[in-house]
Amino acid sequence: MLPESVYKKLTEPESVALVGVTSRTGLGSNSPLEVLLKQGYRGRVYPVNPKGGEILGQLVYTSLLDVPEIPDLAVICAPRDAVIELFSQCAAKGVKIVIITAQGFFDGDEKGRFMQHELSELAAKNDIRVLGPNTLGIINNYHNFCTSFMDFVNPVKPIGITCQTGTFYLGASQICTGAGIIVDSGNTTDISVTDVIGHLARDPRLKVINIHMESLRDGVRFIEAARDAVVLKPVIIYKTGVSPAGSLAASSHTGSLAGEDRVFDAAFKQCGLLRAVDTEEIGDLNKVFCTFSGINGNRIGIISISGGAGVWTVDACTRFGLEIATLSQSTLEQMGELFPDWAHCANPMDIWPASMSQGYQYCFRRALEAYMEDPGIDAVICMTGSFLALDGDFLDVTGIIRDVAGRYPEKPVTVTSWGCNYRHYEEEVEKDNTVVYYISVDRAARALAALYKYHHQIKNKKRGPVILPAHPGQSEAAGILAGKTGNLSQADALSLLESYGIATARWGQARDLAEATALAARIGYPVTMKILSEDIIHKSDVGGVRLNIRNARELEEAFTAMHTEIAKKQPGARLDGVIIQEHLTRGIELLVGSKKDPTFGPVLAFGAGGVFTEILNDVSLRVPPLSKKEIKTMIEETKISKILAGARGTAAVDMELLIDCLAGLSQLLLANPAISEIDLNPLLACADRVAALDARVILGNK
Amino acid sequence: MLPESVYKKLTEPESVALVGVTSRTGLGSNSPLEVLLKQGYRGRVYPVNPKGGEILGQLVYTSLLDVPEIPDLAVICAPRDAVIELFSQCAAKGVKIVIITAQGFFDGDEKGRFMQHELSELAAKNDIRVLGPNTLGIINNYHNFCTSFMDFVNPVKPIGITCQTGTFYLGASQICTGAGIIVDSGNTTDISVTDVIGHLARDPRLKVINIHMESLRDGVRFIEAARDAVVLKPVIIYKTGVSPAGSLAASSHTGSLAGEDRVFDAAFKQCGLLRAVDTEEIGDLNKVFCTFSGINGNRIGIISISGGAGVWTVDACTRFGLEIATLSQSTLEQMGELFPDWAHCANPMDIWPASMSQGYQYCFRRALEAYMEDPGIDAVICMTGSFLALDGDFLDVTGIIRDVAGRYPEKPVTVTSWGCNYRHYEEEVEKDNTVVYYISVDRAARALAALYKYHHQIKNKKRGPVILPAHPGQSEAAGILAGKTGNLSQADALSLLESYGIATARWGQARDLAEATALAARIGYPVTMKILSEDIIHKSDVGGVRLNIRNARELEEAFTAMHTEIAKKQPGARLDGVIIQEHLTRGIELLVGSKKDPTFGPVLAFGAGGVFTEILNDVSLRVPPLSKKEIKTMIEETKISKILAGARGTAAVDMELLIDCLAGLSQLLLANPAISEIDLNPLLACADRVAALDARVILGNK
Repeated sequence: MLPESVYKKLTEPESVALVGVTSRTGLGSNSPLEVLLKQGYRGRVYPVNPKGGEILGQLVYTSLLDVPEIPDLAVICAPRDAVIELFSQCAAKGVKIVIITAQGFFDGDEKGRFMQHELSELAAKNDIRVLGPNTLGIINNYHNFCTSFMDFVNPVKPIGITCQTGTFYLGASQICTGAGIIVDSGNTTDISVTDVIGHLARDPRLKVINIHMESLRDGVRFIEAARDAVVLKPVIIYKTGVSPAGSLAASSHTGSLAGEDRVFDAAFKQCGLLRAVDTEEIGDLNKVFCTFSGINGNRIGIISISGGAGVWTVDACTRFGLEIATLSQSTLEQMGELFPDWAHCANPMDIWPASMSQGYQYCFRRALEAYMEDPGIDAVICMTGSFLALDGDFLDVTGIIRDVAGRYPEKPVTVTSWGCNYRHYEEEVEKDNTVVYYISVDRAARALAALYKYHHQIKNKKRGPVILPAHPGQSEAAGILAGKTGNLSQADALSLLESYGIATARWGQARDLAEATALAARIGYPVTMKILSEDIIHKSDVGGVRLNIRNARELEEAFTAMHTEIAKKQPGARLDGVIIQEHLTRGIELLVGSKKDPTFGPVLAFGAGGVFTEILNDVSLRVPPLSKKEIKTMIEETKISKILAGARGTAAVDMELLIDCLAGLSQLLLANPAISEIDLNPLLACADRVAALDARVILGNK
Repeated sequence: MLPESVYKKLTEPESVALVGVTSRTGLGSNSPLEVLLKQGYRGRVYPVNPKGGEILGQLVYTSLLDVPEIPDLAVICAPRDAVIELFSQCAAKGVKIVIITAQGFFDGDEKGRFMQHELSELAAKNDIRVLGPNTLGIINNYHNFCTSFMDFVNPVKPIGITCQTGTFYLGASQICTGAGIIVDSGNTTDISVTDVIGHLARDPRLKVINIHMESLRDGVRFIEAARDAVVLKPVIIYKTGVSPAGSLAASSHTGSLAGEDRVFDAAFKQCGLLRAVDTEEIGDLNKVFCTFSGINGNRIGIISISGGAGVWTVDACTRFGLEIATLSQSTLEQMGELFPDWAHCANPMDIWPASMSQGYQYCFRRALEAYMEDPGIDAVICMTGSFLALDGDFLDVTGIIRDVAGRYPEKPVTVTSWGCNYRHYEEEVEKDNTVVYYISVDRAARALAALYKYHHQIKNKKRGPVILPAHPGQSEAAGILAGKTGNLSQADALSLLESYGIATARWGQARDLAEATALAARIGYPVTMKILSEDIIHKSDVGGVRLNIRNARELEEAFTAMHTEIAKKQPGARLDGVIIQEHLTRGIELLVGSKKDPTFGPVLAFGAGGVFTEILNDVSLRVPPLSKKEIKTMIEETKISKILAGARGTAAVDMELLIDCLAGLSQLLLANPAISEIDLNPLLACADRVAALDARVILGNK
């Protein structure tokens, strides 16, 4: 998190220098000075341009050094080739926070990347914090402060935003419905979402945070910052550069390489971020969070102008995991009176049959009032018609909804209407900011589901940093890893797992047949035998793996046959004996492993093993450190977990053992950054045992 | 399909009687007469009301019998208790087409259902076709004809619609963007989507068809009608009552029971319908189909106001299966000139760096012109900004887009804009009906993907009815089934499969150990032995199944042990000997089966077998009859198909054999409607063989 003083000077400076500001003004001039004055900024502004003179009545300084104070913030608004020179002026002047708007650095060519490095060095040497380059900078609507060179329309909304593109910044009025504070970090060479999000979360004026993310440098720090923020406020994230093609486009846009999207997705889930699938979802969720401060549960009441529309509202609720409320006796009695004998009175409530004799508006009011008083209903979706000519719309219930809903702020109400006048309805119904309009019931249901999720599954969940004591096996693990590079031998790999308490199938090494026979007797038949040799990489290909050996006679046969085949297929290979291992067949094959992600470091993977790993992609991911509770959730996300829980009458797997195994691996990874990849291939799990049969461990450079 | 004359009288009658019309007029009167007159209907209108007199200057007949001609169409607009009496009048008068608007029949109580049956009998006896009840009837915007009692706003659009709720009918201006012809079938007791869709498909004024479906009576007839229609026109379907709760709500709405949604989904896919996930998708797809008559491929050019927005457009294209076009040398050269040295010029094209010196509008025009001439681009998504104040919007490119796109009608162009003025942009850019606006690039990509799918994967695909010659095994199959009910014995079940050429593991029946031993020797070890007994339902539970018997000695042991265990666990069970079966272990376990659906009849299922069936739900469904090509597609829809194709180095399964097996089963089901359920459990498939190991066949009432 940025120091408070830096954040304050960045977002509500008392003085700002616009360094290299254009002297042009008026339509299309792209003058940030003009925008700032128009916005009504009340701090001190220092335009700097070598030509001097005046712009819009403001004295222009020919050099930043001439400015009569050290401004809180400098915005360098010149094209890239002038930036280093101007940045040096900032350093000389003693400015500590600089925004660079120009494009063409990491997002440009070789020269741009070179200049970027130069800037970073200058910044470090002079202790300057940088926002950008390739950014429009800051909007603080509470302070009439804005560093954009475009004079755009942006209504005040209690939303804090960080983004990596000007489109998001300028389009916030549409994408996000408006904004309170926006920080565009552009290429994000220094100040990033991670530095800012905690401040947005602590700003009492803001109700929700939006993140537009294209790339991320330090995933682990981001996770910490996000975990901290979601306890205070709902955080919606829109991650772009998701597809391989999009990721490529992103890398040429902000000059950074995006990691795998599914790792980002896992990390977002882990910290309780609400991920928006597209730009419309951001706006939809903002509306619901800005309007309602909570929701008591997920039981939805539906009031509809027709039976058909009630049906599709039920579908929408079910699609997003909401429940259809059961009406109380009192609601049924009150409303039942209004209906003709033949009609159903239930939830969803199609009020049309009642309206034919009682009038639509009267019935709507009665239904909404009954629903608001019904303790079994947590929120209401209204479906009405906006298909009549506006001047004779005797079905208009927007005022009724505003009136009734306004009296029950703890019970969210959304409205969807059908017919040409829907935009007018939207405006009317949202007038008092007590009700939210959605153009479809699916979007209403999605937003209410997010509201429920945040207040009941995210906000209250303990997400503090997971701090685990050092594992007692670490010195043993360190010993095994010492001096090693590349692939570990299988014996080392298995020992490494055991050092962190990860069970393996019983095994041992034998130098010759006699030792192997004795070892097999100790381990107990059936056993598996594998050749030990640094020269042989693919053991199976040369006959170096023999499964299901049932007795000493078979062991001898297998030992001889194995050595004969190897002698033929890879003559001259140095042989160091064999591994004898308990031959396990019981149990469910699982995939457990880890790979280093460029953004998040080691990422733990769990899922279905064997042939189904690749085909089904039934894998869940997490970024360590992990609590046991989080590991349990991770397991439960997979489809294979249903089998582990004992589907189809088979005994359930011992979940404690499995969780311990993943917890051990997670600690092993964190304590030993040399491990770049690890695979337990497979891990067998059954009712009373979890055991790794094989392990592949690859070490990278420390 | 309705006879041409009936469809014509229903949708553009020369004369219409409004039977039981209200004498009230004006705001809120719900008078269909008033609506009809206001719409400017030019046919002859006969209001009928026992009170007689005049309404809105029209002579009112006290009885339909007094009307001076037999009208083409009668609309009964009275409440339900008057309907039967008025319907009898229609019959007496000789009217052959009647619309019933009242609610409270199948959608109401017991009395309503009784009246509905009475109506149906009356209709059959008098050869009357009925639309409704519980319907608003017809809209024909080309004929100024409308039977609604609500005077709603509904712009003319070349869209043919059938629906089952008035909400869809009245809201068409929003849900569908407008309409040409609408048929609301309400409770759908007689005339249904199946009767109408072929007429809509053949109407040269219409460009696209929308179906809102809540329930369906005869699935097989619908499939035929839909197959016929999609060759002529794109058909978008919005099926509601999808969730169990929604299905329940639907059944109380139109009084019919909805089948399983995944069966509907399979049937829709099979006939080439475009299924909309929500109401917004209907409108989005209508726009694209009404504006563009084709698309040459799926290579998308992207022109964007910023790099960031380009990234998320690429994501959107990838999400919906579109490709990012590679720019031609000519485009690169033309555009490259406009860009500063450091900037990338590629697709997606972020024109901002070029705009800084050349002007945004100029660059946008140049880019769009180059894209329209580029033979490697099939469609263009434009992303622009609408964030400036309207009166000084020097970035407005809506006119430029209209101008350039209008010259290249064969290359679809969509526009998305960011910022507060997006609605103004939408209106501006769509002015000439040559360009389509979408509020997000995701929705643009989804619509273009549907356009591509229709023109390249649906329209040209041969979907004629699949007519297969009778299978030579039918007489044998009929013999096996003759006189049977309930569960078939395993021997009968296996024989039944074989009669239709479906391979099974080699098997035979034996009455005693001697026969069993001889049989096993013929079949070849290892074998499986199963008890034969009508009294024993769960063979495994009483030890009645013995697997992997490797020789005669083991067979004898197993035979004895089996009989001993059964004698203990189910003493007195009548035993009829044993089945000896080849013990197969090689191969991939598959699920193949069928169940009767209330709407579509027998539905064929194919997918992953064994423990993964329930967990992964990796199953694809089809409604027979099926061509071999369709069966191939069906198999390829599953994840397990990747394993069948030889993933992970294993030999590929013989696809011909597998397809033959499914084709045989499909024919067996069609020819023998007595089969209500069948399960090949499992079917084993490997490189050179496909064999059913077990089969469960349940017969229902014929």
